[in-house]
Amino acid sequence: MRFANFSLDKHPLALMNVKPADRVNAITPFYVMELLRQARIMETAGRRVIHMEIGEPDFPTPKAIINAALKHIETGQVKYTPAAGLPELRQKIAGFYRQRYGVDIDPRRILITPGASGAFLLAFGISLNPGDTIMMADPCYPCNRNFASLFGGHAMTLPVSAENQYQLTAGQIRLHWGETCTGVLVASPANPTGTLIADEQLAQAVAATEELGGIFFSDEIYHGLTYGRPAVSALQFSDQVFVVNSFSKYFGMTGWRIGWLVVPEPWVGAAEKLAQNIFIATSTHSQFAALSAFEPETLAELELRRKQLARRRDYLYQQLLRLGFKIPIKPEGAFYIYADGSNFTHDSFQFAWDLLDKEAVAVTPGKDFGVHDAQYALRFAYTTSMANLAEAVRRLERFVS
Amino acid sequence: MRFANFSLDKHPLALMNVKPADRVNAITPFYVMELLRQARIMETAGRRVIHMEIGEPDFPTPKAIINAALKHIETGQVKYTPAAGLPELRQKIAGFYRQRYGVDIDPRRILITPGASGAFLLAFGISLNPGDTIMMADPCYPCNRNFASLFGGHAMTLPVSAENQYQLTAGQIRLHWGETCTGVLVASPANPTGTLIADEQLAQAVAATEELGGIFFSDEIYHGLTYGRPAVSALQFSDQVFVVNSFSKYFGMTGWRIGWLVVPEPWVGAAEKLAQNIFIATSTHSQFAALSAFEPETLAELELRRKQLARRRDYLYQQLLRLGFKIPIKPEGAFYIYADGSNFTHDSFQFAWDLLDKEAVAVTPGKDFGVHDAQYALRFAYTTSMANLAEAVRRLERFVS
Repeated sequence: MRFANFSLDKHPLALMNVKPADRVNAITPFYVMELLRQARIMETAGRRVIHMEIGEPDFPTPKAIINAALKHIETGQVKYTPAAGLPELRQKIAGFYRQRYGVDIDPRRILITPGASGAFLLAFGISLNPGDTIMMADPCYPCNRNFASLFGGHAMTLPVSAENQYQLTAGQIRLHWGETCTGVLVASPANPTGTLIADEQLAQAVAATEELGGIFFSDEIYHGLTYGRPAVSALQFSDQVFVVNSFSKYFGMTGWRIGWLVVPEPWVGAAEKLAQNIFIATSTHSQFAALSAFEPETLAELELRRKQLARRRDYLYQQLLRLGFKIPIKPEGAFYIYADGSNFTHDSFQFAWDLLDKEAVAVTPGKDFGVHDAQYALRFAYTTSMANLAEAVRRLERFVS
Repeated sequence: MRFANFSLDKHPLALMNVKPADRVNAITPFYVMELLRQARIMETAGRRVIHMEIGEPDFPTPKAIINAALKHIETGQVKYTPAAGLPELRQKIAGFYRQRYGVDIDPRRILITPGASGAFLLAFGISLNPGDTIMMADPCYPCNRNFASLFGGHAMTLPVSAENQYQLTAGQIRLHWGETCTGVLVASPANPTGTLIADEQLAQAVAATEELGGIFFSDEIYHGLTYGRPAVSALQFSDQVFVVNSFSKYFGMTGWRIGWLVVPEPWVGAAEKLAQNIFIATSTHSQFAALSAFEPETLAELELRRKQLARRRDYLYQQLLRLGFKIPIKPEGAFYIYADGSNFTHDSFQFAWDLLDKEAVAVTPGKDFGVHDAQYALRFAYTTSMANLAEAVRRLERFVS
């Protein structure tokens, strides 16, 4: 033992404040975590669990990105970067917007962040005051709601349905807009539904939000992972939107924790100031790695993966329908199918538990994503191999028949 | 261009909300950033600037850590880890506490975070309600104040002086404690002063805070970088404290963005829930790299660096005194000397500007760290080579004479 140890008498802790801040209670838990814990126990006991609950593809990080990281780390100089990120990377992302979406974005408006999580921290951190609300679809990704709670705001979740691709419409936005509203968040392709917002619907939602004096937040983290038409960016309609994106999903860099935020020009100063204070900067080696994300070699590899995911989607979609699940709209992106299991259950959480328990297949219950029809809903992720999907379908068939 | 471009008419933006959230104004800027911008302009024009404003040592990341990262990244499997971090890493940190401080910490209480920044986000995020205050020393590291502002709280900064190592005392804590107080933050070794809190002073500050029903937050990110006696951890006095630490400074991993937070047992659930929502997890490759931070080989290398920093400290301390700066207490840790330049200026910000302009030496003005005697103060970082320090001293001598 290197240091002296003190024999200080223990003082009374009775008065100790162990009451968490209010925001901790406002933040919803992930119910799927309970399932995951159980799945791990089963795996330790030797059972082979098929994981269809995980929002992380099974592909490794593309080779060119790996090599760029190795090259940088070998120098030993993994030092802080500017708070907003490596200028070269911000330029490359701007180039990507030009090439893929035909929009010109000043690299100054692009901030590199620790994942899309960091981008949401910044986006809501600079724009939300306590009491403010952000409109979101129900169902939606729970963390997006929770980022609003983090800053004392909250999500106003509006039920969405298959007719509108499970996405908000300009009409809904206008109808529900109120004094506390700061803005609207749309995610396309969406988690959990895998649906894309229609191009005109997005254009109109952006226009409605801005006419109401609000901020349009566009979650584009599944862009690139689309299996029919490509996703359009909110930046194609307005330079006043906030766009969250990430290298995690399409670029295969989940564990690298790197994403980005595009802000309108007047917000650049606020975003940089906050980034400096709450991150210092994003991981340097992840940034150097991401410099190779836009290489033709990488993009070619990602295109092959996209095609593989498309095949998995087609297979799982057909099989779930065959088994009696209802999927009112064929998902066109991300790697999720949000299925209505009302033919089998009116308690999809219990269904998920039983499915795990009896057949060792893990899926995510609807209640993780909202309340609207959540009791019938299950999210199936096709982030695992075709062989695993086929085995999961066999088990599922046995389970429901 | 891959996607269709829309010729949507631009809609009126007159109503657009561009008013940042209140917390953005509550967060103070870094004045040194203006100096840094100027320094970069000078460097682009060919001048050789000596940087003594940077809180990042010039050493590369130790070899064993680099190699562990390379080995992990080569697998291509840089996937999400559990939100609280790799279990093996949490265990290793617990082992480090046992070996170096003689305290037993349940690894469940240790959360891996994206740098100390992430640890502060979690610590204040789970404990601070809007309107709450945290007591801190003036001077202190500005981000620590700003983390409180982020959540609608604020720092109650109390002037500290050389007699108490520029650190808060139990007497001050008792005297200034009020209804809005949630806790007390002490950083030792401190930034900007480089001073350590006396062991008994720390014990008493912890006891006073807990008797008052508050939370004691201990910022220990410069632990290991001490040049006389070693720093003690607040965990040696209580298992109810929050401890923030990092692999950045002592372990030479600044750009890797990895740190940790130790919370009391009753707070584990809240901390995990928040981590899951706002980070997902810390960079995986940084975590695998950090597994090698506690290897004997790494620790031996770090000990050599510590000795080098001690020599730099001794040199710079003597030279600044010789030139007429006042340093009432010899700094014992971190890599900063906080000098009183009142023999030369009553406006240390202007002094820093002139020093940069005339002699191309960059230092940080006192006003970045508070208001108490800040107009005389300058922070010199010895994060650069002895040769650079000697050149800086020559320039400084010319400047003040």
